[in-house]
Amino acid sequence: MNTIKIGLIGLGTVGTGVLQMVMNNQDKVSNITGQNLSVKTIVVHDVNKPRDVDTGDITVTEDLNAIIDDPEIKIVVEVMGGVHPAKEIIAKVLNAKKHVVTANKDLIASAGEELAAIARENHCDLMYEASVAGGIPILRTIVNSFSADNIIEVKGIVNGTTNYILTQMQQHHWKYADALKKAQELGFAESDPTNDVAGIDAAYKMIILSQFSFGTHITMDDMAVEGIQNIQLSDVKQAAAFGYTIKLLGIARRINGGVFAEVGPVLVPLDHPLATINNENNAVMVTGQAVGDTLFYGPGAGGLPTANSVLSDIVSVTKNIVLKTTGNSFNNFQDQVSSAAASEVVYPYYLALKMPDVPGEMLKVTKIMTDIKASFSQIIQTKNPDQTARVVIITHDMSKEQLAQLTERLRQTQTIELLAAYKVMDKG
Amino acid sequence: MNTIKIGLIGLGTVGTGVLQMVMNNQDKVSNITGQNLSVKTIVVHDVNKPRDVDTGDITVTEDLNAIIDDPEIKIVVEVMGGVHPAKEIIAKVLNAKKHVVTANKDLIASAGEELAAIARENHCDLMYEASVAGGIPILRTIVNSFSADNIIEVKGIVNGTTNYILTQMQQHHWKYADALKKAQELGFAESDPTNDVAGIDAAYKMIILSQFSFGTHITMDDMAVEGIQNIQLSDVKQAAAFGYTIKLLGIARRINGGVFAEVGPVLVPLDHPLATINNENNAVMVTGQAVGDTLFYGPGAGGLPTANSVLSDIVSVTKNIVLKTTGNSFNNFQDQVSSAAASEVVYPYYLALKMPDVPGEMLKVTKIMTDIKASFSQIIQTKNPDQTARVVIITHDMSKEQLAQLTERLRQTQTIELLAAYKVMDKG
Repeated sequence: MNTIKIGLIGLGTVGTGVLQMVMNNQDKVSNITGQNLSVKTIVVHDVNKPRDVDTGDITVTEDLNAIIDDPEIKIVVEVMGGVHPAKEIIAKVLNAKKHVVTANKDLIASAGEELAAIARENHCDLMYEASVAGGIPILRTIVNSFSADNIIEVKGIVNGTTNYILTQMQQHHWKYADALKKAQELGFAESDPTNDVAGIDAAYKMIILSQFSFGTHITMDDMAVEGIQNIQLSDVKQAAAFGYTIKLLGIARRINGGVFAEVGPVLVPLDHPLATINNENNAVMVTGQAVGDTLFYGPGAGGLPTANSVLSDIVSVTKNIVLKTTGNSFNNFQDQVSSAAASEVVYPYYLALKMPDVPGEMLKVTKIMTDIKASFSQIIQTKNPDQTARVVIITHDMSKEQLAQLTERLRQTQTIELLAAYKVMDKG
Repeated sequence: MNTIKIGLIGLGTVGTGVLQMVMNNQDKVSNITGQNLSVKTIVVHDVNKPRDVDTGDITVTEDLNAIIDDPEIKIVVEVMGGVHPAKEIIAKVLNAKKHVVTANKDLIASAGEELAAIARENHCDLMYEASVAGGIPILRTIVNSFSADNIIEVKGIVNGTTNYILTQMQQHHWKYADALKKAQELGFAESDPTNDVAGIDAAYKMIILSQFSFGTHITMDDMAVEGIQNIQLSDVKQAAAFGYTIKLLGIARRINGGVFAEVGPVLVPLDHPLATINNENNAVMVTGQAVGDTLFYGPGAGGLPTANSVLSDIVSVTKNIVLKTTGNSFNNFQDQVSSAAASEVVYPYYLALKMPDVPGEMLKVTKIMTDIKASFSQIIQTKNPDQTARVVIITHDMSKEQLAQLTERLRQTQTIELLAAYKVMDKG
């Protein structure tokens, strides 16, 4: 049986998982592809760093050229992470006519199209299933199974760190800071958690999901991105009392001709499938015009789950090598779509306000709501110990335009502080 | 742009959906495949039957040869259902060198391998994504995304009718007969519901899922299949009190060297993702050695969702035609696996017993449990109005062998009736 040689760049958690899976699951892969897979060379930053994994007779080196210059290596797996120098390295590998599999979401979200063009020029495959939602095979599923349907919306919990923190706040009534600390102790959050908790990681994934779902290319600048750092335990409790749980959702939605994409905390009804996704797990809901709601759930990170997605790419490339069909784009759906107008993006909102506990303040709020033609379905007012009142409102549908007006008008009162404005997902 | 002509056999709900999707979603399909799709000929049982759909200038005929003898037609979609004459028709179509897409689970479960062999001989594609769980793209996902992982278990809610009925029993405390009647009124159950409520439809789907997950071919004879007809409202309520909901699950599991497959009512913990799948929806959970638990949720039936799965097959075949890569099996994983031994299939069980309400009867039960080395975690005893007692037990892990012993020993008492023995899924 023919053997396909693989080069691996990076030997962290995911790289180790890839190495283990290639070694342990030979039989099934050869059963399916008729080819053996074997890791020949691993490029690492520091060959002297102690590793948990036995690399046997595989060449482990700091020299990238050991892969680039080796004509035997057909597939290169990049799991070093970061945009630079990963981008330059992948370009070099593709120009050496080697197929590339990567798990690098930051890179694909920011330079995916550029690298895809280099891949096409070289008739090489560039695949990155593992870049979104770790172990959930969502990208290939969108490519293969929604090819004839119009996707209306793709949304989901695509960051495990924030979902772990929010789950702890919800289940144990911990404050944000305490839940973050716990997540850091357990390795679910990094020592500098900004990329996760500020929603940036989720936004990168939504950029890639939007490309696959709508054929469009949105950038970070097109998206409103809000993290979970300002979510108060009181919001979590209040949401629960209303019948919701707060989740950090990425939402990308086709609205009339345009696309709207955003990352932020959303109140999800307790009986909605997304409300049941707990801890570090991820889930992506894809809504198609024909098929309706579908949901894909699984581990969002972790060495072996992510490695499994990398392996599914390796097997796809291997099949393409055998069938001589390499060089087709992973995402073959391209469309010209503009951003949806702020007046057309409409949701109910959860608003948390702080105001002096004196007569007339609530009147100001209702006056502003009336002026901007917004209305509410529920209001809860509680007294704070410090002579202020906390008012929580669930509004009826409001456009982003109305929300901007509301925010500005509240700011002008100088007495009323808008603490939170989160979207509310309709109860079914 | 080149046009691929399609022949359609059957114009019921799914056939109509396929026709509509081919007509309405031309742009996206040609964007992705570079080919136009067009339905040229439809074969129906009765051309004079009134139809809801406008077939325009498409030939509608009762003559199968209008498809077989037409060299222009490259892909044939079979959505007539039933094993005969669908099997003979598909064989004829494949032998005429035309690719086949079908949604026919009974046929694929019983004659899939035979038809796949005919397809291979003719270098034709035979695809059937829609045969399992309607709108959920589960088969292609297993093929493409678990190709390097060892699947340990595949289980799920794969019949919408029974899930609708159980949801109504659970949510509204309706009896089985009333919930069935409601399902029939709403079109979720057929006038003769046996195929669904007895678990047969679910068993066919589990046969196909097992083929894809384990590479093995199990038959109906290898499976214990129990339906929902005997589930009492009291069981549903009792399960809820224990923190479970009763779902009809198909389970196929690798145990040591063998495979165990079964369809039956299972008590699912309320916070398990499968417990939240309500009404006519389906969900399949795939557990991989590397990836862990993943879940795929969506509509299990319906014209457009099922049509979407048919279209994903048509697009796959179209890509294969363009790339000249037709003739590969849809499921390319083949393995020799035996049935797992009854002594190795181990679950906790929910047992419902009826016995005379007199001293000594419970002692008989505990004596039998001790004899077969089984133990229980919970027992609830309630008095019936008719001088009998109803005893409900949650056992610790028991093998199927022990369960068979227990059933036989209880039968021998002549006074104790075993009303129900349902598996219990462990609380996480």
